[in-house]
Amino acid sequence: MFVITKPNTSSEQIATLQAMVEDLGLQTMIMQGSQKTVVGIIGDTKHVPEGAFLNLDFVECVKSVSKPYKLVSREFQKEDTIVKVRGIPIGGKAIQIIAGPCSVETPQQMQASAEAVIAAGALFMRGGAFKPRTSPYTFQGHGEKGLEYLVEAAKEYDLPVVTELMDVRDIDKFLKYEVDIIQIGTRNMQNFQLLKEVGRLKVPVILKRGMSATIKEWLMAAEYIAAGGNTNIILAERGIRTFESAYRNVLDVSAIPFLKRETHLPVIVDPSHAGGQSWMVSALSLAAIAAGADGLLIESHPNPDQAWSDGEQALTPTELKDLMNELRLVARVLGRDLGQRNVVPVSAYSLDKTTQPLAA
Amino acid sequence: MFVITKPNTSSEQIATLQAMVEDLGLQTMIMQGSQKTVVGIIGDTKHVPEGAFLNLDFVECVKSVSKPYKLVSREFQKEDTIVKVRGIPIGGKAIQIIAGPCSVETPQQMQASAEAVIAAGALFMRGGAFKPRTSPYTFQGHGEKGLEYLVEAAKEYDLPVVTELMDVRDIDKFLKYEVDIIQIGTRNMQNFQLLKEVGRLKVPVILKRGMSATIKEWLMAAEYIAAGGNTNIILAERGIRTFESAYRNVLDVSAIPFLKRETHLPVIVDPSHAGGQSWMVSALSLAAIAAGADGLLIESHPNPDQAWSDGEQALTPTELKDLMNELRLVARVLGRDLGQRNVVPVSAYSLDKTTQPLAA
Amino acid sequence: MFVITKPNTSSEQIATLQAMVEDLGLQTMIMQGSQKTVVGIIGDTKHVPEGAFLNLDFVECVKSVSKPYKLVSREFQKEDTIVKVRGIPIGGKAIQIIAGPCSVETPQQMQASAEAVIAAGALFMRGGAFKPRTSPYTFQGHGEKGLEYLVEAAKEYDLPVVTELMDVRDIDKFLKYEVDIIQIGTRNMQNFQLLKEVGRLKVPVILKRGMSATIKEWLMAAEYIAAGGNTNIILAERGIRTFESAYRNVLDVSAIPFLKRETHLPVIVDPSHAGGQSWMVSALSLAAIAAGADGLLIESHPNPDQAWSDGEQALTPTELKDLMNELRLVARVLGRDLGQRNVVPVSAYSLDKTTQPLAA
Amino acid sequence: MFVITKPNTSSEQIATLQAMVEDLGLQTMIMQGSQKTVVGIIGDTKHVPEGAFLNLDFVECVKSVSKPYKLVSREFQKEDTIVKVRGIPIGGKAIQIIAGPCSVETPQQMQASAEAVIAAGALFMRGGAFKPRTSPYTFQGHGEKGLEYLVEAAKEYDLPVVTELMDVRDIDKFLKYEVDIIQIGTRNMQNFQLLKEVGRLKVPVILKRGMSATIKEWLMAAEYIAAGGNTNIILAERGIRTFESAYRNVLDVSAIPFLKRETHLPVIVDPSHAGGQSWMVSALSLAAIAAGADGLLIESHPNPDQAWSDGEQALTPTELKDLMNELRLVARVLGRDLGQRNVVPVSAYSLDKTTQPLAA
Repeated sequence: MFVITKPNTSSEQIATLQAMVEDLGLQTMIMQGSQKTVVGIIGDTKHVPEGAFLNLDFVECVKSVSKPYKLVSREFQKEDTIVKVRGIPIGGKAIQIIAGPCSVETPQQMQASAEAVIAAGALFMRGGAFKPRTSPYTFQGHGEKGLEYLVEAAKEYDLPVVTELMDVRDIDKFLKYEVDIIQIGTRNMQNFQLLKEVGRLKVPVILKRGMSATIKEWLMAAEYIAAGGNTNIILAERGIRTFESAYRNVLDVSAIPFLKRETHLPVIVDPSHAGGQSWMVSALSLAAIAAGADGLLIESHPNPDQAWSDGEQALTPTELKDLMNELRLVARVLGRDLGQRNVVPVSAYSLDKTTQPLAA
Repeated sequence: MFVITKPNTSSEQIATLQAMVEDLGLQTMIMQGSQKTVVGIIGDTKHVPEGAFLNLDFVECVKSVSKPYKLVSREFQKEDTIVKVRGIPIGGKAIQIIAGPCSVETPQQMQASAEAVIAAGALFMRGGAFKPRTSPYTFQGHGEKGLEYLVEAAKEYDLPVVTELMDVRDIDKFLKYEVDIIQIGTRNMQNFQLLKEVGRLKVPVILKRGMSATIKEWLMAAEYIAAGGNTNIILAERGIRTFESAYRNVLDVSAIPFLKRETHLPVIVDPSHAGGQSWMVSALSLAAIAAGADGLLIESHPNPDQAWSDGEQALTPTELKDLMNELRLVARVLGRDLGQRNVVPVSAYSLDKTTQPLAA
Repeated sequence: MFVITKPNTSSEQIATLQAMVEDLGLQTMIMQGSQKTVVGIIGDTKHVPEGAFLNLDFVECVKSVSKPYKLVSREFQKEDTIVKVRGIPIGGKAIQIIAGPCSVETPQQMQASAEAVIAAGALFMRGGAFKPRTSPYTFQGHGEKGLEYLVEAAKEYDLPVVTELMDVRDIDKFLKYEVDIIQIGTRNMQNFQLLKEVGRLKVPVILKRGMSATIKEWLMAAEYIAAGGNTNIILAERGIRTFESAYRNVLDVSAIPFLKRETHLPVIVDPSHAGGQSWMVSALSLAAIAAGADGLLIESHPNPDQAWSDGEQALTPTELKDLMNELRLVARVLGRDLGQRNVVPVSAYSLDKTTQPLAA
Repeated sequence: MFVITKPNTSSEQIATLQAMVEDLGLQTMIMQGSQKTVVGIIGDTKHVPEGAFLNLDFVECVKSVSKPYKLVSREFQKEDTIVKVRGIPIGGKAIQIIAGPCSVETPQQMQASAEAVIAAGALFMRGGAFKPRTSPYTFQGHGEKGLEYLVEAAKEYDLPVVTELMDVRDIDKFLKYEVDIIQIGTRNMQNFQLLKEVGRLKVPVILKRGMSATIKEWLMAAEYIAAGGNTNIILAERGIRTFESAYRNVLDVSAIPFLKRETHLPVIVDPSHAGGQSWMVSALSLAAIAAGADGLLIESHPNPDQAWSDGEQALTPTELKDLMNELRLVARVLGRDLGQRNVVPVSAYSLDKTTQPLAA
């Protein structure tokens, strides 16, 4: 940590500052420039009261050298974290696609959704039972009933599921229904109580980036979960808020290579929320994979026009399948591949409903 | 609601759209321009599936006429809402100042804080018992113990208190300690479960604007509380996130006149978090009052250099008092005034500790 | 165009508005909702004084149906514009790579740069003679001398060149040196005088997006050039300014599919300025191509460590070549290809310096 | 300047870095932390090639101690700069109001505008002859004819004028018409050629902040002008671009105290462009003055409904006068005052048209 002083700071003032630092049990090192003096602080600066330095009127600014996140940083762990979900790896060479509807609506819709996911060759299904909605007057999700529909449909096809947790009081339900991956949504990225609670579990967590969260804040949110003991964390970029209003959000593709360097956690992308329109999903998905993402979280629906929420951004089963094929080609020329399952035709599936073995 | 079509849309396509609308029990009205056709939809469009229209390939966009918020809008209620807290009005002609430390630290610090609040002439005290902190490794607040310290110190001086609620599971504690105003912090502005819960109470709520929340999202968050039956809502602008990094946030002073026109709820400003530096607080406070704010939420501390959090933005007791005097002058020339109490010298206070009558 | 009134607007007020519209020679159509009245305005609304409507106190807002840009819109021209530069197409199926240094420094550096461009298989060279620099105290470019070095090196290898124009007074020099493509930089995107002047030329123009320009403003800037008669316009996305400061800018990959739908102009991407760090260039380049970009504008330098400007974001000759190979693979699986030249080994080039035929 | 290395950097690597620095004739100072090493660079670091350091793979980042702007910084000059325009001070204790229409339209409109400015008690008139317009199809200003109308109307009332310069080729016209203050508009804040040219003049310059310019970029733009020898610079905050679309821009009121600390130049505010609606001008103007601004640039028009541009944000003569009265009250309680002229009733003015003496 450095304290940079204003020009013409006297040696008495510097001495005051040094004394403050030494009182904290830390050492100083002085670097005298032509105009400004820089006081380096050596030692564990975690509990240094920066505010007290900033309140000194001869201090211009304080700069930190160390990063505020530890456990999730690449400095702490060099190798990629691979989160295993029922044996399927997220992170590493395989790229995993998670598809399914915005909201869980009916058992029939979930069954059709699961069939479409299987038909497209994706290995995970998503679906929202508890829905964070901007308006109190719109459909808020079926709640526990939604979990039931989701899990039941997924079981028939042996699909691990992802669904969003919004309330600490619902954790027991998530455990009861054996949700495979808990999603923390963009509006809850800094709901620290929720982060602490999922940090106590072993269940993998998809942590979506807050709509305007910096990378640093996002990694600090992940650090909350990791600090609790749960390091099965998957980061999900889902578009950021900018000045542009032509599309809902701007997919921050720059975040992908940056995160791959800065953290060992897997990074996936939600192209559906980023663009907010189904016709943008394909381009954004391809871009995400080309930039190095470890997976995608895509909204699909058996019949988008009838969707109870976000129908304009959902892919049809055919669009989903076509996209998967394109993604596979790009993944392969870049030395990766989409995660694979012992693919069984949907008709066969529909007939015998036996549990299928999964392979990454 | 309007659906605007692309150029060269055929009359058959328009007919398809009309049929979709009529199936919903609504009426259409066609406006034929030189290039585009506009289909107006008349009736209650609350449940219209916009996505289905957007998925038609001849549709360019859908525009809404009505506002998504009702109860909190000026259209719904013309007169200003005045939130009464132990008889003190927030909203209306008087401008109310809430001051106090970022974190509740010790009984002594809270006592000194309360004395400073009284000495400055402010009518409310703030202090955080549950602290949302970016890092899991920093002080997270004393929790219930903090509520106790806060409330005890406030009682001695008969100061109503404001403190932040982060977790639905803590509501009982807030009721037990009779917290006068519950604050929903910037990171929880779209924690819909929390909003629903405080919507069920009668306790006044300060709803801080999300760091990057649009006015519309903010009012929709207030609508969540109002829809639950609690209309004792105070909006607090606290600076927004922009591209500028020279100061922590940009105080959105433009929001003040905009909100006063758009909603009947009182609007206050937090100049401390907006600037993030104590030397900016005075200018931002004056600007907020001049722009029409109904109050301020200011961080002050008996000894900012020793503060456990946010010391760099806290005012000293003297600075707080000086600022109050400036604010009063500006308020008066603009036809308003700071809320007043039968002011009793701090020394007298310290001696007899009797409960004082409050007057706005 | 629609004028939406506030609730409880009287029929007399509506009549006033209708009269205003009819005085302008336009027709109105009234749509009466339950609360608000909408007045549609039919006819050519280009010169309608929106301000006068907004100043009526019963008017809530005015919404426009038509787009402000015409010539550059997909509505105006359905087929893709293909800009031909010495026979090489920009737009269409081939993807073109433009590479070269930030600044033109010396004849030797430019010769080495040209060799690297050829060796990598790119068809265009870039290099800045007039440099827009944030600080008046840094290298401002060699000016006309720079044009000379650039053009001379390029001629030897028969490489068409791209270079930035900052000042209307320099146009004659650009014509004298026969610059193949004129670049309008991000800071001049709304330098309307400059846009008007290049609109009078026939030389192709790369129009970079302003750092915080909306898509609409960007297309309006292109419209300035097109309105002057020059439709040889190439749009270049180069990263936008957001709240994130971990990297210089955020590459707005969402803009690519959006622009391909909204305009017929070719769209290229500058991954070097977007990321600001050479190690990000590869991921961003691949993402851009995967999302559908028609080309890339990449900074490369024979020796980045010695570059006079932006060395931290320049690729070495080897990195450039490796990236080209990856880009080619991705382009091909997506049904496109990089533009090709009858490739001749650099050594041969260096020996005989004859003009090579170009092929796309 | 500091170079911060990644963890586990070897002593050989540090030695390499030291050698590079010493080759530049500068000294190093090593600070060994528990994980990272920090290499301080002592001496004149203006020409240090940061990129070369960043390209070293053991370097994490480079941080600068000194500010990139010199002449305009408070460090360079402690006392406030007071720009004198025909004897009237801008900066210092007096607050100056500049009012007038967006566009110069007709001689009659300018005469009426001047009368309104005088009647309100403002000391300067604005009016645009060269208009930067987003669309090529809207009114672009009268050009030189506009300068003539502006200056003629202003002369009758002895009002100094402010008008915008967009093109280096127009400078002679600005000098010929003796424009008192040249405005550099928001879109030209980084038109470096234009900045260099006005830097060669003695005429005072209002430098508007770019719509998304950081404070640092803005001060660097001012540095361009100052470096040319012209230190008669007035900074004008005019609202910044953010995610919020409820109003045109967000007035960055936080910039005012920050700039007053960081630079010695006067700071004024344009509340009209910031809000984009006439009903917001009053609140924003009061906020700006309360926050410490040295003046305002307000759009007013004899008849806003008939304005050729920006009518929705222009004040009427009566609104302008009422606002001036409010501003005066706020200025006075804060120890300042509006600049005063020996006020003469407009009627008298209209009668004899003699030149009036000006007093600040």
